[in-house]
Amino acid sequence: MTKKIKATIIGASGYTGVELIRILLGHPDVEIFQLIAESNAGQPVGAIYPHLKFSDLPDLIKLDAADFSDIDVVFCCLPHATSQAIIKELPTHLKIIDLSADFRLKDIDTYKKWYGNEHAAPDLQKNAAYGLTEIFRDEVKNARIVACPGCYPTGSTLPLYPLIKAGLIETDDIIIDAKTGVTGAGRSVKQNFLYTEVNEGIKAYGVCNHRHMPEIEQSLSLAAGGEDVKINFTPQLAPMNRGILSTIYVKIADGKTIEDLRSHLEETYRNEAFVHISDSLPSTMDVFSTNHCIIGLAKGGSGKRAVLVSVIDNLTKGSSGQAVQNMNVMFGLEETTGIAYTAVFP
Amino acid sequence: MTKKIKATIIGASGYTGVELIRILLGHPDVEIFQLIAESNAGQPVGAIYPHLKFSDLPDLIKLDAADFSDIDVVFCCLPHATSQAIIKELPTHLKIIDLSADFRLKDIDTYKKWYGNEHAAPDLQKNAAYGLTEIFRDEVKNARIVACPGCYPTGSTLPLYPLIKAGLIETDDIIIDAKTGVTGAGRSVKQNFLYTEVNEGIKAYGVCNHRHMPEIEQSLSLAAGGEDVKINFTPQLAPMNRGILSTIYVKIADGKTIEDLRSHLEETYRNEAFVHISDSLPSTMDVFSTNHCIIGLAKGGSGKRAVLVSVIDNLTKGSSGQAVQNMNVMFGLEETTGIAYTAVFP
Amino acid sequence: MTKKIKATIIGASGYTGVELIRILLGHPDVEIFQLIAESNAGQPVGAIYPHLKFSDLPDLIKLDAADFSDIDVVFCCLPHATSQAIIKELPTHLKIIDLSADFRLKDIDTYKKWYGNEHAAPDLQKNAAYGLTEIFRDEVKNARIVACPGCYPTGSTLPLYPLIKAGLIETDDIIIDAKTGVTGAGRSVKQNFLYTEVNEGIKAYGVCNHRHMPEIEQSLSLAAGGEDVKINFTPQLAPMNRGILSTIYVKIADGKTIEDLRSHLEETYRNEAFVHISDSLPSTMDVFSTNHCIIGLAKGGSGKRAVLVSVIDNLTKGSSGQAVQNMNVMFGLEETTGIAYTAVFP
Amino acid sequence: MTKKIKATIIGASGYTGVELIRILLGHPDVEIFQLIAESNAGQPVGAIYPHLKFSDLPDLIKLDAADFSDIDVVFCCLPHATSQAIIKELPTHLKIIDLSADFRLKDIDTYKKWYGNEHAAPDLQKNAAYGLTEIFRDEVKNARIVACPGCYPTGSTLPLYPLIKAGLIETDDIIIDAKTGVTGAGRSVKQNFLYTEVNEGIKAYGVCNHRHMPEIEQSLSLAAGGEDVKINFTPQLAPMNRGILSTIYVKIADGKTIEDLRSHLEETYRNEAFVHISDSLPSTMDVFSTNHCIIGLAKGGSGKRAVLVSVIDNLTKGSSGQAVQNMNVMFGLEETTGIAYTAVFP
Repeated sequence: MTKKIKATIIGASGYTGVELIRILLGHPDVEIFQLIAESNAGQPVGAIYPHLKFSDLPDLIKLDAADFSDIDVVFCCLPHATSQAIIKELPTHLKIIDLSADFRLKDIDTYKKWYGNEHAAPDLQKNAAYGLTEIFRDEVKNARIVACPGCYPTGSTLPLYPLIKAGLIETDDIIIDAKTGVTGAGRSVKQNFLYTEVNEGIKAYGVCNHRHMPEIEQSLSLAAGGEDVKINFTPQLAPMNRGILSTIYVKIADGKTIEDLRSHLEETYRNEAFVHISDSLPSTMDVFSTNHCIIGLAKGGSGKRAVLVSVIDNLTKGSSGQAVQNMNVMFGLEETTGIAYTAVFP
Repeated sequence: MTKKIKATIIGASGYTGVELIRILLGHPDVEIFQLIAESNAGQPVGAIYPHLKFSDLPDLIKLDAADFSDIDVVFCCLPHATSQAIIKELPTHLKIIDLSADFRLKDIDTYKKWYGNEHAAPDLQKNAAYGLTEIFRDEVKNARIVACPGCYPTGSTLPLYPLIKAGLIETDDIIIDAKTGVTGAGRSVKQNFLYTEVNEGIKAYGVCNHRHMPEIEQSLSLAAGGEDVKINFTPQLAPMNRGILSTIYVKIADGKTIEDLRSHLEETYRNEAFVHISDSLPSTMDVFSTNHCIIGLAKGGSGKRAVLVSVIDNLTKGSSGQAVQNMNVMFGLEETTGIAYTAVFP
Repeated sequence: MTKKIKATIIGASGYTGVELIRILLGHPDVEIFQLIAESNAGQPVGAIYPHLKFSDLPDLIKLDAADFSDIDVVFCCLPHATSQAIIKELPTHLKIIDLSADFRLKDIDTYKKWYGNEHAAPDLQKNAAYGLTEIFRDEVKNARIVACPGCYPTGSTLPLYPLIKAGLIETDDIIIDAKTGVTGAGRSVKQNFLYTEVNEGIKAYGVCNHRHMPEIEQSLSLAAGGEDVKINFTPQLAPMNRGILSTIYVKIADGKTIEDLRSHLEETYRNEAFVHISDSLPSTMDVFSTNHCIIGLAKGGSGKRAVLVSVIDNLTKGSSGQAVQNMNVMFGLEETTGIAYTAVFP
Repeated sequence: MTKKIKATIIGASGYTGVELIRILLGHPDVEIFQLIAESNAGQPVGAIYPHLKFSDLPDLIKLDAADFSDIDVVFCCLPHATSQAIIKELPTHLKIIDLSADFRLKDIDTYKKWYGNEHAAPDLQKNAAYGLTEIFRDEVKNARIVACPGCYPTGSTLPLYPLIKAGLIETDDIIIDAKTGVTGAGRSVKQNFLYTEVNEGIKAYGVCNHRHMPEIEQSLSLAAGGEDVKINFTPQLAPMNRGILSTIYVKIADGKTIEDLRSHLEETYRNEAFVHISDSLPSTMDVFSTNHCIIGLAKGGSGKRAVLVSVIDNLTKGSSGQAVQNMNVMFGLEETTGIAYTAVFP
C-alpha cells in the first residue's frame, strides 16, 4: 500500500463538492484531508448534508484556516470568477483540479464576453489543461491545473469532437438540443428551482445564449483545425435530479454514411472505460450516478442529417467524476480507480 | 336553455376517453349518454378510474349494446386501425370526432406504409376534416367526420404552418425535437412505462421513425403549396404525466428576420382563444390541463436559425380538449365553451 | 343573470392566491376586481405566474391603492400574524374569508402559544366562523369573517368529528399520520424545498409539534362535548405537488364495530357534494385539483383499532376551494357553484 | 489476494437481482459466475437492463444449464413459493442466501395462512437463519441457508426489537405507518405500477393485511420472550423509486422516558457500521442506494407515545445489500466489504 493522496476540497458545500466527497470516500488511494466552505465553516458536513452525518469526515473550515503544506491535490468547486483569484494564491506544489468555468476558455476575451469580468489569472489560464479526459489525456497528464469541462460540453463534445476531426460531419449548422436534470443548477436557493416550480414541467432556457456554448465551440473549432465552428445550443430543464441527454443533429459529410460515423466512434472509444457506443438509444438512467457516457446514433428524416444521442450524469462524468478521472491520470493511477461504479437502477 | 347535445364515447376506458369525460362533465351543453368500452363493459367507470367513482356517469357498455338513434355526436377513442371499421358502420346522422390516427392521413398509401394495414374505409377518409381547429376551422365546421390531430403534430404544426405558408421560413431541414409526458403512451400496460422505468430518466425513441412524422409533413407540405416537405423529428419521453414541449429549429427565409416570424405568428393567432405568442419561453406547466398552446421564439446561434418553442397538454389540446373544441365548432357553439380552463399550477 | 360578486384577493401572489384566481376565473358569479400583493405590486400576475399571462386579470396593486367601496368579498391569503392586523382595518361592509391561521383558534392563549405573537384582533376572533363547511355550515352562513381551516385539519377533522360526536370512537390515543405534497409549503424560497432536496425522498417534520395540531384538537374537543382531546400528529413531506393523505388510527368504542363507523360516516355525508365514503382506500390522485374529500376505512391489526384514510387536495379543499365553498354559502349561492371539478387524471 | 467467492444469482432479472449485480460488481472478493433467469435465458443481461450493457457479465442461462460444482454461494431472488422447491434441490456444499419470503416464517402454518401454499421444504425451514444481520448475526454466521428479511420488516424491526427486548416499550398497540418507493413492487408489469398511475399520488394498500406483518410480529414476539405481539401495519406507496420511511408509534413503558429509548438504541447500535441513531428525523434520501438504516426519535403528543422514524433503501438494506452483508458474515469477511457506499445525493 502506497501513501495516500491527500486532498482538499474548496467549496465543499455545493453539489459538486458533495459528489466529490461521495466519490473520494470510496476511492482507495485518496484521503480527504480538508473541507473548505466559507459560509458553513465550523460545522460538520453532516449539519448541512444529513446523508453525510455518519461519515468520517473533517469539519468544514474557512480558507484562511487551511494548511496546504502536506496536501497533494486541491479540488476547487467554487462558482466561476471566484476560483481564479483563489487558485492564483495557492502554493505551487499543489496539483489543482478546478470544476468552475474559470480556466476552460483559452481566449481571455471570450471569457470576458461570456462571464463579464476581467480574468484575474490570465497567466495560469495558459497552463491549464482542458480536462475532457478521453480527448485531452496527454495534456491532463502533465498539467498542474486542470479545468474540468462543463456538464453540457462533456456530453456534446465526446460524440462531436472525433467526428469533426475525422471530417465525417459538416461543421456548419450543428444543432445540440440538451436536457438536464435539476442538479445542474447547484444548490442555489432560487424560486425557479423550487420543487413545485420544476416538477411536472419541462422548459427551455438560455437558447443559444448559455455560457457552455462558447466552450463547446472552442473544442469543436479545435477539432476542425482552427475553423471557427458555431453551433445552435438549446439547454432545457427536465424534472429529474441528474442526467443530461444531448440530442445532436449533424449533417453527414458528402460521401459518408451513418455507418462511417458509428464505426469511427467505436474505433475512437474502443479502449476507453467510460465512453460507449450503443446499438440502441440510451436513457439518462443508464448512466445515473456513474462516470460513463453512452452514445447512440440514428438516421435523420431528411437531407443528410444524422442524430447523435449522448447521455451522462451531469454531477459525475459531467463534473466530479471526471475530476477524479483527471486526478487519477495526473497521479499515474489506473484511470478507473474509485470511479468504476455500476449505475444505480432503478 | 337549449336542448343538450347527446354524446357517446367509444373507447371510454383509455386516457383520452377519461379526459373527454372530465371535460364533458363540465361542459354546459353536452350530456354524456353512453360510454362504450368492450373489455370493461358492465362495470361503472369508477371501477377502473377511482377518481370518477362519485361522478354521475352511465356504466360502461359494449358497442353491440349501444343505441345511437338519439345520439348527436360520437367521440371515438379507439386505437388506430380499429376506429375505421367501427366508424364505417355508424349511422349517418351522427357527427363523428375520431381521436385515432385513422382519418388523419389523406393518402391511403402513406397510411398503409406507416400503420401497416389496408385502410378499411378509404371513402370516408376523403370526407374527414383534419381537426387542427385554428388552421382548418372551415373544413371542421362542415364535416361529418373530424380526425383530431396527433399530440405531437398539434404542438408542431401550430407554429410551423403559418410561417411556411407565408414563406417566412425555409422548408428544408426543419428539425423538431419534441419531449412528451408519459400519458402520451396511453394506459397500455408495458414494462417500459412502469414508474420505475421512466422516473428520473429521459430518453429518445423512434427518431425520425414515428408515425406522427408523416402527419406533420402532410400539413407542412400543404402549407408549402404542395411541395413535399420532409422533416427531422425526434420524440422523447420525459418523466412527467402531461405536456409536450416542441423545440423547433427553422431557417429564416432570406431577407426575413425573427421579428418577422414573431409578428406573423402574432397576427395569425391574434383572435384565437387558445393559441398565444409569448415574449418568453413557455414551460409545459403553463398549459397543464388546459386547451392552450403557447409559442415562444428565440434567436439561433449560427446560420439563419431561429428556435420556436411550443407547449401543449398532450391530453387536452393534443387530444380530448381539441376534440371538444372541434365539437363546439361543428355544433355552432361558442368555441371556448366548456374548455376555457386555467392551468392547474403548481 | 344577477349582478356578479366583486372580489378582492389580498396576498394574491402565493400559491393559495393563485389557486383562488384559477377557481374564481371559472366561477360564473364572481368577478376578480382587485389583486393585492405588496412585493409584486405594479406587475401583471403573468409576470410572476406565466400560466396566467394570457388570462384577463387586473394588475397587482398595493393594499394602500385598493378601493373596497364597491367590493363584496375579500379573500385574505396572507401569512399568519399579518392577516389579523389588516383584516381589523377593513371596511365593515365586506365579507371576509381568511385563509391564514389567524382566526382559526378560538382561544387567544393557545394562539399565542403556537404562533408566538399577541393576537392583534381578539375581538374579531370571537365573530369568526371556522370554515370547515360541512361541519360548521350554519356558522359560516351568518358570519362576516370566516377562517378557513388548515389543510391538515381539513383532511383529519372531516372523518374524525362525526365519529367522536357520535361516541363511536375513543378520544384518547388518536394517531394521525399525514403526508402532504410540497405546495403545502407555499412559494417560500427555502433550501429544503428545492426540487433536488425534495424529489425522490420522504421525511417527517414537526412531529407532534405542528401548528395544525391544536387546530385539530380544538375541533375534536368540541366534538367530544368539551373534553380536552389530545392527539398524536405526524406531518410528512412527500415528493408530489399536491395532495394530503391522512392515515388515522382510532380505537373503536366498546360495543361498536367498523361497520358502525362506516355507516355513520355515510349517513353524515350522504347529502354532501364534496365528501364521499369509499369502499376502497383512496389515493390523493383521486381528488387532485378538486374540492373533494374521499374517506376509506380498514380494519386494524390488533386491539380495537380501525384505520381511516382520507384524501384531499391541500390547495383546493384544503385551502382555496373550501374558501370559495364558504363564499358560496355566505352569499346564498348553490354550494358547488364554480368548484364542481372532476379530478385531472393522470 | 485470496481466491474469490464464486457466486450464482438465481432470478437475476428482477430488481433485487439486478441490485445484487450492481453490488457484487463492486465487491472485491466476489466473482459473479452464473446468472440464471428462466424467461430471459440466452440473452445478455444488457438486453433487458440497458445500464448493464457495457458491464462484464455472463449471459443469462436457464437453471437446467447451471453448474454448481465450483460455486460457493447462491443468491436466490425468485418470487416466494418458487424459491423453496429450487433450494431444496441445490447441492449441499452451497451456502444459500434467499431473498424471497420462503424461509422467513418459522411457523409452517403461519406461512401457509399468509402465502397460501403448503411449504415444499419444511425441513430446510428449520435450518434457515433470519438474516437481519445486526440482530441475528450469530445465527447467520453458522447457517447454510439465510432468509433475508422483507424490506418493511427490516426498517421496522431494527428500531423495535431492542426496545421490546429491554422492556422499554409496551408491546400492545404498536402502530407502524410505512411508506415505500415503487421498486418495492419489483419489475412486475401491472397497470397500477405504470408511471402515470403512481406519479403525483400517495395511497395506502393492504392495511393490516400485508404479508410482511406476520414477519414483523414473529421478530417482535421473539424480542418479547415469546409473548404473541400483534401490530397495526399500514404500507403505503409513495411516488419515488426507492426508500422506506417507517413511522412507528410506540407506548413508552411505565417509568421510562424517550431518553431511555434513545440511549438504549444508541448503545445497541454503537458498534454497528450500518445502523445509526440520529438527533434529527431522517429522510429516505439520506440512505438512498446504501446499506444504512437511520433511526430518529420524537416525543408523542398525547399519552405515553413516542414516535420512531426509520429509513432504509428497500433494495439495498431492505434486500440485496443486506444479502451481501450476510454473505460477508457467512464467509468471514469484514462485514462492510463491498457495501460501504455513501448515499447518492441528490
